[in-house]
Amino acid sequence: MPADQPSAEPRPAMRDALVSAALALFAEHGFDATTVDDIVARAGVGRRSFFRYFPSKESVVFPDHEGTLRRMSDFLADESGFAEDPVARVCDAARMVLAMYAADPEFSLARYKLTRQVPALRTHELSVVRRYESALAAFLRTRYAGRADGGLRADVVSAAVVAAHNHALRGWLRSDGQGDPAELVEHALGWVYATYTDDVPSAPGIAEPEDEVMVVVARRGTPMWRVVQQVREALD
Amino acid sequence: MPADQPSAEPRPAMRDALVSAALALFAEHGFDATTVDDIVARAGVGRRSFFRYFPSKESVVFPDHEGTLRRMSDFLADESGFAEDPVARVCDAARMVLAMYAADPEFSLARYKLTRQVPALRTHELSVVRRYESALAAFLRTRYAGRADGGLRADVVSAAVVAAHNHALRGWLRSDGQGDPAELVEHALGWVYATYTDDVPSAPGIAEPEDEVMVVVARRGTPMWRVVQQVREALD
Repeated sequence: MPADQPSAEPRPAMRDALVSAALALFAEHGFDATTVDDIVARAGVGRRSFFRYFPSKESVVFPDHEGTLRRMSDFLADESGFAEDPVARVCDAARMVLAMYAADPEFSLARYKLTRQVPALRTHELSVVRRYESALAAFLRTRYAGRADGGLRADVVSAAVVAAHNHALRGWLRSDGQGDPAELVEHALGWVYATYTDDVPSAPGIAEPEDEVMVVVARRGTPMWRVVQQVREALD
Repeated sequence: MPADQPSAEPRPAMRDALVSAALALFAEHGFDATTVDDIVARAGVGRRSFFRYFPSKESVVFPDHEGTLRRMSDFLADESGFAEDPVARVCDAARMVLAMYAADPEFSLARYKLTRQVPALRTHELSVVRRYESALAAFLRTRYAGRADGGLRADVVSAAVVAAHNHALRGWLRSDGQGDPAELVEHALGWVYATYTDDVPSAPGIAEPEDEVMVVVARRGTPMWRVVQQVREALD
């Protein structure tokens, strides 16, 4: 996670009360049988307060996504990161989502169980995931502008990053929160990063043409003289 | 597209009439202002007939997805394809979706315009795309079973294939159907295939252990003795 990004922004007490009341009622009576009126009655606030914070009953289950999306967009728009490898940058952005889940494991696990049971919540979650992916793709499209197949690369890399992040996150949620989710996500993002980064490690100082990397591929069993010949050919 | 897969299955006339009536009404009055009663009245059939074919007003806009999903599942379950490279197989499966769009360009373009305007349809489309992606991932999980990070690889490769397919399809739809969508999709899938295939061209005959490939990476400017030393170390 980028060091200067808070893992979650402070939530007003009333908003928190609404989220707790909603989750408790969904667990007791089910999502479909619970109304917004039930939620505000339990939280002891007016109906209007609910809709000040949440556009729908679904969105109360994902209270931190809007904030995370906003922070992610700010992070990606920050020009001080433009010198960085774009793939590293979108991996950092994905880590912000993980940080949100890891900040409150109990809530994340309860939500995971609920979401598995309620199709409307799964659909809502898909739209949220799509918004994260679109934010990453929009950033990459800018960074890959002018490059052949830049748009294709932007869409595929952002989909791969989101899929890797979600694979690791889902593994952690399925195991009921065993282990460190950040480690799982690092491993998954590392694989995608290695696949798509252009960031070849550079030699100290300004790279001269003779600093280029040479790769020789040969079958085991190739005679040594043939390998040396190949190396010489590559060097010429 | 696999040669033995029909691009679309025959649709009953009543089902077709309902789709045409619905699309015409959505274009005239908008999606939200049109009811299922309006659709059945225009099509001249009973309300029950609508729900025999479609579970919801949203699903009438995507009449061929259920059939394509079914054919895709059959195709992936077909054991005669198990000798094939798994990435090639999921690319073939993705081509079945393209074939469905390309079979009726006029309908596909009209739907694209409508879907851009109606959030409920975009959400419905996301669920459908997710089901295609899940079918590809489930297939790859089986094929990558026992392999380190098989589950991660399955999720990332299926996401990349779907993203590449959709990038090309969306490009075609945005351009109002200019050019050959199959060519665009071939190009996009070709890039993903090259990234993830394991299908290294094999030597004739059965590979012996000494047929393993050795890769040596060195900077240009590395002395030849050092390269030879590296090669010897790799061989030991």
